[in-house]
Amino acid sequence: MAFGFDVSGFHRESCPARAGAMTSLLDQPYRGGFAGPEHRFALTVYFEDTDTAGIVYYANYLKFMERARSDMLRAAGIDQRAALEAGTGVYAVAEANIRYLRPAKLGDDLLIRSRVEQVRAASVIIHQRVMRGAEQLTDGRVTAAFLTVDGRPTRQPKEWTDIFQRIMTQEEHA
Amino acid sequence: MAFGFDVSGFHRESCPARAGAMTSLLDQPYRGGFAGPEHRFALTVYFEDTDTAGIVYYANYLKFMERARSDMLRAAGIDQRAALEAGTGVYAVAEANIRYLRPAKLGDDLLIRSRVEQVRAASVIIHQRVMRGAEQLTDGRVTAAFLTVDGRPTRQPKEWTDIFQRIMTQEEHA
Amino acid sequence: MAFGFDVSGFHRESCPARAGAMTSLLDQPYRGGFAGPEHRFALTVYFEDTDTAGIVYYANYLKFMERARSDMLRAAGIDQRAALEAGTGVYAVAEANIRYLRPAKLGDDLLIRSRVEQVRAASVIIHQRVMRGAEQLTDGRVTAAFLTVDGRPTRQPKEWTDIFQRIMTQEEHA
Amino acid sequence: MAFGFDVSGFHRESCPARAGAMTSLLDQPYRGGFAGPEHRFALTVYFEDTDTAGIVYYANYLKFMERARSDMLRAAGIDQRAALEAGTGVYAVAEANIRYLRPAKLGDDLLIRSRVEQVRAASVIIHQRVMRGAEQLTDGRVTAAFLTVDGRPTRQPKEWTDIFQRIMTQEEHA
Repeated sequence: MAFGFDVSGFHRESCPARAGAMTSLLDQPYRGGFAGPEHRFALTVYFEDTDTAGIVYYANYLKFMERARSDMLRAAGIDQRAALEAGTGVYAVAEANIRYLRPAKLGDDLLIRSRVEQVRAASVIIHQRVMRGAEQLTDGRVTAAFLTVDGRPTRQPKEWTDIFQRIMTQEEHA
Repeated sequence: MAFGFDVSGFHRESCPARAGAMTSLLDQPYRGGFAGPEHRFALTVYFEDTDTAGIVYYANYLKFMERARSDMLRAAGIDQRAALEAGTGVYAVAEANIRYLRPAKLGDDLLIRSRVEQVRAASVIIHQRVMRGAEQLTDGRVTAAFLTVDGRPTRQPKEWTDIFQRIMTQEEHA
Repeated sequence: MAFGFDVSGFHRESCPARAGAMTSLLDQPYRGGFAGPEHRFALTVYFEDTDTAGIVYYANYLKFMERARSDMLRAAGIDQRAALEAGTGVYAVAEANIRYLRPAKLGDDLLIRSRVEQVRAASVIIHQRVMRGAEQLTDGRVTAAFLTVDGRPTRQPKEWTDIFQRIMTQEEHA
Repeated sequence: MAFGFDVSGFHRESCPARAGAMTSLLDQPYRGGFAGPEHRFALTVYFEDTDTAGIVYYANYLKFMERARSDMLRAAGIDQRAALEAGTGVYAVAEANIRYLRPAKLGDDLLIRSRVEQVRAASVIIHQRVMRGAEQLTDGRVTAAFLTVDGRPTRQPKEWTDIFQRIMTQEEHA
C-alpha cells in the first residue's frame, strides 16, 4: 500500500539523515506525525499555559489539542491555510468534550495522542488524549465540522475524507 | 427569605443610585449577577478572542465561561483567591462539554447565562450558555471539582454547598 | 463645542437613568469612556490572565491595553470591524514599549488610563497606564499603524485623525 | 574551555544519533539551543496565535519570545520551575520593547533568535528577533528581573550570572 502522506512514524523534517550545518536542526520547528493510525504531537508547558493555581489552565488543553489536529492535517497532506485562502472552507469545532484527570505543570513534557474516530460527509470526530509519560492527563473528543468561509456546513473535499478513511485503517504501530 | 448574597439582579456596584463624580462609573469593572437562579455575565469580543477564520477561537469560550463562573462565585460570596491563599483549596475543572452552535465575531456583545445544575460534596456542575441577543451560540456544561492546594479532591466548605443549594432553589426571575 | 462622540465621562449604556427590568443592567457589557482627554477602562483579573508565578502574565497586559484601545475607538465613533469588513483598513501595532512596575494578581480590579499622545497621517501613539487604585502597575506606549487589508501602511481616514485631534485637545477633567 | 551546558548547536534530545523505536522521535518535544552566543528557537503559527485581521495577534509575539527565553535558560542549565518551587525566586519581565516590522500568518514557520545583551546583579537584558526565513518580523528587547517569590527584586544566583557571562562571550557560530 502506498500513501500520499507519511504514516511511518519517522520525523523526517526535523531529523534529516545527515545534517549539513548543525544549526539547521535547531531552525526546524517541531512536527508530529503518525505511528500507524495514531498521530503523536509533543510539546512543553510554558508560563503562558499555566495559571495562578500552579497548573495548566483548562482552556489551554484545547489549544494543545488544536495544535495536534492542525499538525495531523498537515502530516496527512491537508493544507488548512490554502483551503481558507482559496475560499474552499475551514474546519470549525462543533463539539468538544474533555475530562481532566491530572494537572500538568510548568516545564512538563506532554504528548498528544490523536485518532480519527469517525468520518462523516461534513465532519470528523477526533479522539485526543494528553499524556505525560505513561500518565494520562486528559481525555477528549472533538467534532470538527467543515464550513464554507461564510460559515455554513458543507461537505469536506472527497480527497480529504479518503485520507481520513486511510488513516483509520492503518495497522497499529508495534 | 434572606440571603447573604445578592440575587436580586440589581447591579449595585457599577450603577450607584446617584453618581458623585461621573468618572467613578467608568472606573468600576463590570460585575454580573443573579436574576433568580440564573447568573448573567456580559462581555464584548475583542481582537484577542478571534482567530484568522474571522470568528472567536473555540478555546476562548472556555475563558468566557470561567469569567462567568468566577463572577458567579464572587456574587455568591465565595472568595476563590482568599481560599487559594489560605490553603483551603481551589476549584479545578474536572469535565467540560461544549457544543458550538453559531460563531461569535469581533465586537459582538455576548451574555453568558449560567445555572448551578447539581451540587455534590466535592464538585458542582454548572450549565452555561453563551448568547448573542436571542441567539444561542454555545451550550456547555462544566464540572468543577474542589481540590486541596496540592491537587487532591476534597469536600467543598459546607457553607459553599449551602450557597449553591440556595441558588438552585431561587424562584425564576419574571 | 459639540462632539460627535461622548466625552462626558458618563457611562450611558450600562447605567440608564431608569432601569426597566433590572436584569437589563446585567446584560450590558462594560464600556469605558472618556473623562476629558483621558480614556478609562476598568477590568477584573481572571484565572486566564495569571500564570504559575501567581501574577498576571506579562503578555496579557497587552491584551488589557488593546481592549482599552478598542473601547476608546468605539467610544470615539470609530468602528474597527466595519472598517475591516468594508476593506478600508485595520490598525496594527507597529511598536509597543512597556515597563512593568508592580504585578497584578487574581481578582484585582484594574483601570487602564489611555491618552492619545501623537497623531500622524498613518499612525497614532497612545500612552497607556494600568492602575490598581492609586498604584501604577505598568507604563506603556503603543504606536498603532493603519494598514490596508493586505497589510500596507496607509493614511487613516481624515475623519478619524480629526477625532484624535479633538480628543487630545479636550480639557482636563476636574 | 569546557562548559556545563551545550552551546554546540546540536540538538541532541530530539535527534539521537540512532533512533531505537522511530516513534520515540515524535515523542520528544522541540528544544532550541545555542549556535555560538545566539539562542535559536523555532515554532509554527497555529490558529490560537492569529486574530481576525488574519495575522498573529501582537501580544502573542511576547509568548513566542518567552518560550524562547525559557528554552534558553533550560539549555543553559537554569531550572526556573525548581527555583520557583524551592523558593529561590523567579524571573519577571521588568521592561519589554518591541517593534513589529512584518506580520506572521497561520502556518508560518518562525525562528526566534535571542542574545544575552547585558547582565546585571538582579536582571538580564535579552535581545530577541522573530524571523521568517531571512525576513525579520519583529525586533524586541526584554529586561528580566529576578524576584523573590513574594515579588521583591533580588540578586540572581552567582552561578547564573556566570552562565550569562559565558554565553555572551561565546564565539560567533560560523
